[in-house]
Amino acid sequence: MSERHRVVVIGAGFGGLRVVRGLRDVDVEVVVVDQHNFHTFQPLLYQVATAGLDTDDIAYPIRGIFRRQRNATVRVAAVTDVDIGRRTVHTSRGDPLRYDTLVVAAGTISHDFGIPGVSDHTLPLKSVADAVAIRDHVLATFERATFDDQVGHALDVVVCGGGPTGVEMAGGLTELYDRVLRKDYPGLPVGEARITLVEAVDQVLSTFDESLGSKAAATLRKRGVDVVTGVPIARVGDGVVELDDGRRIDAGTIVWAAGVRAAPIADLLGVELGRSGRIVVGDDLSAPRHPEVFAIGDIAVDPERPLPQVAQPAIQGGKHVARQIARRLAGEPTERFEYTDKGSMATIGRNQAVADLPGGLKLSGPVGWLAWLGLHLLYLMGFRNRINVLVNWTWNYLTYDRASRLLAPSDD
Amino acid sequence: MSERHRVVVIGAGFGGLRVVRGLRDVDVEVVVVDQHNFHTFQPLLYQVATAGLDTDDIAYPIRGIFRRQRNATVRVAAVTDVDIGRRTVHTSRGDPLRYDTLVVAAGTISHDFGIPGVSDHTLPLKSVADAVAIRDHVLATFERATFDDQVGHALDVVVCGGGPTGVEMAGGLTELYDRVLRKDYPGLPVGEARITLVEAVDQVLSTFDESLGSKAAATLRKRGVDVVTGVPIARVGDGVVELDDGRRIDAGTIVWAAGVRAAPIADLLGVELGRSGRIVVGDDLSAPRHPEVFAIGDIAVDPERPLPQVAQPAIQGGKHVARQIARRLAGEPTERFEYTDKGSMATIGRNQAVADLPGGLKLSGPVGWLAWLGLHLLYLMGFRNRINVLVNWTWNYLTYDRASRLLAPSDD
Repeated sequence: MSERHRVVVIGAGFGGLRVVRGLRDVDVEVVVVDQHNFHTFQPLLYQVATAGLDTDDIAYPIRGIFRRQRNATVRVAAVTDVDIGRRTVHTSRGDPLRYDTLVVAAGTISHDFGIPGVSDHTLPLKSVADAVAIRDHVLATFERATFDDQVGHALDVVVCGGGPTGVEMAGGLTELYDRVLRKDYPGLPVGEARITLVEAVDQVLSTFDESLGSKAAATLRKRGVDVVTGVPIARVGDGVVELDDGRRIDAGTIVWAAGVRAAPIADLLGVELGRSGRIVVGDDLSAPRHPEVFAIGDIAVDPERPLPQVAQPAIQGGKHVARQIARRLAGEPTERFEYTDKGSMATIGRNQAVADLPGGLKLSGPVGWLAWLGLHLLYLMGFRNRINVLVNWTWNYLTYDRASRLLAPSDD
Repeated sequence: MSERHRVVVIGAGFGGLRVVRGLRDVDVEVVVVDQHNFHTFQPLLYQVATAGLDTDDIAYPIRGIFRRQRNATVRVAAVTDVDIGRRTVHTSRGDPLRYDTLVVAAGTISHDFGIPGVSDHTLPLKSVADAVAIRDHVLATFERATFDDQVGHALDVVVCGGGPTGVEMAGGLTELYDRVLRKDYPGLPVGEARITLVEAVDQVLSTFDESLGSKAAATLRKRGVDVVTGVPIARVGDGVVELDDGRRIDAGTIVWAAGVRAAPIADLLGVELGRSGRIVVGDDLSAPRHPEVFAIGDIAVDPERPLPQVAQPAIQGGKHVARQIARRLAGEPTERFEYTDKGSMATIGRNQAVADLPGGLKLSGPVGWLAWLGLHLLYLMGFRNRINVLVNWTWNYLTYDRASRLLAPSDD
């Protein structure tokens, strides 16, 4: 048994990775636990779902990331329990892991907010497997439709939720439909297929400046998306979304991008939880009565200053926590987490994106789009993935094609 | 209902694609039936199995291929029956397909030759799904081993069959083990893991010139593969291969690359079958008493001149059959199929391949390897796939890495 201070990091997302990396030269032993053997670049999941990129373009094997970091080990397993009193993490495989410091960076899961039918009738978009399931569902629906006399609403899609994920998903779908599926299925009425984006509040991208939300909605509409705002979803049935105002939208594919809650591990800790089950943290990102427990990224919230659930708070929080662990070992007090807002971006597809940057700077159209492309390439993990994504984006852009549309065979 | 001559092509492999393409400017209606919505570049399946390439690098959506060919339609479905009297193909979905000319190009399936235990205890390598299953099995075995006190033979692999697939698989595995898994799992005895290639006849690559087979075996041995030749496999159990001479080789992974037989559709036709269930064809590649039925590639055999079951006979046969269909429609007699031997190649991995070329020309070592790389890039379907494969190969070569090693989560 090592005598060194042991840090257990739960989750190898944007935040978890930064904690482990930040502890590279610190005299600790780090164990990172994730149920996947790979890190997922979540901002591009929608591109896998819309056949623009393949899974291994946006994922990176965790063991490869930490190969050279001698004080880090990886455990690929699900967390089943945390005993905060005994400072022990229980996992689906292997002995319980004792920790001196615990960093919870497990992110969020899709959440239905109590709306009936969501879990049975919609497809979430939170993991690589989710994205592949959406792609497979759409392609299988088209294949099935080639055998049907009446297509009905089978080819229609409803995307629930007008945040960045929903907007990007709707934009990606119009491109997949117009540029690819229309040509792949000349016998089907693809041009009549309706893609609807439903958002409960009055504006899409409601966390962005209002002018950008309006621009995004206008671009989506110009590209054929039916944008419905200001109406909450009442319930979801098999192939139908019912709105609060009584409208029913039939669709063969219903994507749920309307909301998330903290990963269930937050509930296991026995600490105070805030909105959407997020772990309440103090200004140094540690849990109030458990200074040995830090929480970062989407799973954490400082009620004094809630942050958006995107990559930057996780990345900056991860770096901050690594520094605090080092400070404590050196006998120094922890510092307040200072978040630097780097702005928000969302793409609507080809040549169009909106960016809400610090200092009131707003970008949209092709300039916003180029900024979006560059930043996503920059933050992608691994040089090979960057090259692959660049090649595929260039290909997609020049040919209007989407190559990643392989479908596992089925006999239904 | 169209009045045009209708050609139904079963299988969108190397042969089937060439038939459809060759009929582009002929006044026929072509329907290509495949259970997958993609064409598979089979020679590189072993690279998916060994994490060097991802699935969509070696597969190409069929609908994309025939998008611009107005006389071709695609049916993604399994063939369930062929009524050769009524000239009708029955499929798992959709109405039966009437044909005037049938082209059977369904290839082969893995075959156990009656050796007990093969289907229960080995992993075949015939499809994209097979390749992913092998990769997942190896990665899951390593992940599981990180939780075991005793690794035993869990990390060992036996590759059954010393043809090109077996040789390339064994070579790819040594690279995956030595260059990647050894670094990914510093706590496991990866250096002690044994990779064994078992071949019943006295030489690996027995269809090649003997000197090349010896070179391949020597290179494999130098890279740590235990090459066992001249001993047939008696039976396969759970984690063990038993040889005819009584030897038992334990291994956590057993890959079956020892043989194939014609796809089951050959049995449905009610025509004469040759060795391994292959459809017997005349010298114009049509079935003797059914001139309206052609068979090409791995599923067909002209007993007078059997051809190797590789890409070239299928490619050339497909082009030939398209020409014969056009000739018949023009009232001309069919021609004899003239096969041009372009030689055989197999790579053993990094800088090493053997090529047995026409005119007695033999290449090996780095020259053979470069020839192998170039030809495979050339024959790969689609410009995007070529670029992607080139990028990934360059990456793999320079970094010794294998990036495509994502594993779906499991709780076993």
